[in-house]
Amino acid sequence: MPSPDPGIEPTLEALVAQALGEATAEELAQVLPVLVRDVSDIDWRLHQVLGSTYARLTEAARYACSTGGKRVRPLVMSAAFRALGEESTGPIHSLAAAFQLIHTATLVHDDVIDHAETRRGRPSMPRAFGTALAIVSGDYLFVRAFELAAEYSKSIILRSGEACADLVEGEVLQDASRFDLSSGREHYFRVVERKTAAIIASGLASVAEVAEATAPVMNALETYGKALGVAFQIRDDLLDVYGDPDLLGKPLYTDFREGNPTLLSLETFLRLDPRRQAEYEKLFQLRRKRTKHVLRLKELTDLTDAATSVAQEAANWTDRAVRALEPIPPGPYRRLLERLAHGAAERRF
Amino acid sequence: MPSPDPGIEPTLEALVAQALGEATAEELAQVLPVLVRDVSDIDWRLHQVLGSTYARLTEAARYACSTGGKRVRPLVMSAAFRALGEESTGPIHSLAAAFQLIHTATLVHDDVIDHAETRRGRPSMPRAFGTALAIVSGDYLFVRAFELAAEYSKSIILRSGEACADLVEGEVLQDASRFDLSSGREHYFRVVERKTAAIIASGLASVAEVAEATAPVMNALETYGKALGVAFQIRDDLLDVYGDPDLLGKPLYTDFREGNPTLLSLETFLRLDPRRQAEYEKLFQLRRKRTKHVLRLKELTDLTDAATSVAQEAANWTDRAVRALEPIPPGPYRRLLERLAHGAAERRF
Repeated sequence: MPSPDPGIEPTLEALVAQALGEATAEELAQVLPVLVRDVSDIDWRLHQVLGSTYARLTEAARYACSTGGKRVRPLVMSAAFRALGEESTGPIHSLAAAFQLIHTATLVHDDVIDHAETRRGRPSMPRAFGTALAIVSGDYLFVRAFELAAEYSKSIILRSGEACADLVEGEVLQDASRFDLSSGREHYFRVVERKTAAIIASGLASVAEVAEATAPVMNALETYGKALGVAFQIRDDLLDVYGDPDLLGKPLYTDFREGNPTLLSLETFLRLDPRRQAEYEKLFQLRRKRTKHVLRLKELTDLTDAATSVAQEAANWTDRAVRALEPIPPGPYRRLLERLAHGAAERRF
Repeated sequence: MPSPDPGIEPTLEALVAQALGEATAEELAQVLPVLVRDVSDIDWRLHQVLGSTYARLTEAARYACSTGGKRVRPLVMSAAFRALGEESTGPIHSLAAAFQLIHTATLVHDDVIDHAETRRGRPSMPRAFGTALAIVSGDYLFVRAFELAAEYSKSIILRSGEACADLVEGEVLQDASRFDLSSGREHYFRVVERKTAAIIASGLASVAEVAEATAPVMNALETYGKALGVAFQIRDDLLDVYGDPDLLGKPLYTDFREGNPTLLSLETFLRLDPRRQAEYEKLFQLRRKRTKHVLRLKELTDLTDAATSVAQEAANWTDRAVRALEPIPPGPYRRLLERLAHGAAERRF
């Protein structure tokens, strides 16, 4: 069995440390190595199931997974499982791997749809393997995810399927509001709940089920996961304009360029005077934006307090996430979950 | 609940009648209405699970399914289930719907990859709904398929997942040999077994499992399914050159244009004299073929007896399929399965 990307372990440690802030990383020093090990185990499970009789497909699928994200999902699922008193995350390795695969599959198809050039600082899948293999590899990741999910109860399989359907619906909803600033906040949150939050909430509900937790605990984790996902997405929107492209591993202003209304652009739009509002909308609706258009959109954003207000909103979702954890037994893993919720709204990458 | 495409029932009846030949249709008159009803029930199940909270996605998914094939899979699965003595196909409706969805999902993604304009005489999914929605709808069909499969035993879910992985591998293998006539017969059959045959074989093995059939019966249906799939695919290759585009609902010569080596092109290539072989290969390898190139490829094909030989090979797979049915109780449904195997190699659409 080939070894997983050797870069994953140190990267994850750095990521978690940064997400938590240095002081907190020290405070939680006893749990971090355990969780890094968990995530690494989940990566092994993932690499294991990606084997195919055809080397090129295996290569493409593994490449997709090695660029496929920050391992936030496996980390949160492992921490939640341990927060419920479990001594080993073995029983949820396949489940977490399945969710990581589903997440990666949708990123791959997103990159095809958006003609993305890079993902996490490396060439995107369509760029590295061509469109055809990227589409098919995405399908392959979905298929392997469902095979992993098949190890669990029917209710977990069905819940996972529903979350996937939500995710796809979220993408379609998002596509329907492209270039449309009148789509509004309600629509934005509908998209985010389906596209980002549902799959995290679903994964955590299933973690609770595997741990045979009570209904209030399951609800608590599900609510936490949903709020975490929303905080995470709102922060993503902010980073797309105010982040460091080197840390992000991708260029800025993708949402401006693609015409995706974000909480930031919606709130900016509402705050501008009528003349600038018209200018903002006209620029936002341009199908092909030049750099000067994009920079002007940012300039107009900076004329308002939208960024501050949106950051506050992300913080509110963090608070909701933290409050939701009330029924979870206190301890270092619950504290980590709380810190991760803060990290979601404060992270720089 | 909206009603399924009203065109399905009569079309299917006509299709089966034509596949079986007029005389046979009369002979099997008692079973046909039953099976048409079964396939219609499976279509209902399928339309039912495609509902989403977002009308446009539902519309796209249903459109894909209404252009998504000849209902051969649901028909074969229903006939096999009844051949095992079952009085009602209710227990396999979700299973057959799942396989039809998986088949349709791959067709949708194929049409994106191949930039196909039409499918079954109607605009292809990417043409009708755009590339983004086509990719996402394909994912949605996969997801709903797995939710349907979740109603069954773990072994059925896992077998279905493996067949899907085979299918994806087959597509990647096929893509790897594009424009390459030296890829050879062995490679061709590896592609066909994975891309076309595995999913039919898997569906029939699961039908046997639901019917609690013995191992020899399950093997028989699996072998039948595999041979049927191969016969079907070989016939597909022939029809792409010698079919009637109106009956097929798509233009001819797609494999020539796309540079997909088929049994026909491989056998033609082997049979030509060196000078014409070089001409054939040069034309076949052209990335953008004009009509005159494609017609010349057909002309060169007609100089050999490749078409006859390939038709014979399809007939051999039909024979294998029919022989495999030996352990199945004799009766009208087994006869129908036999006739369908003949139909696969003789059909005109």
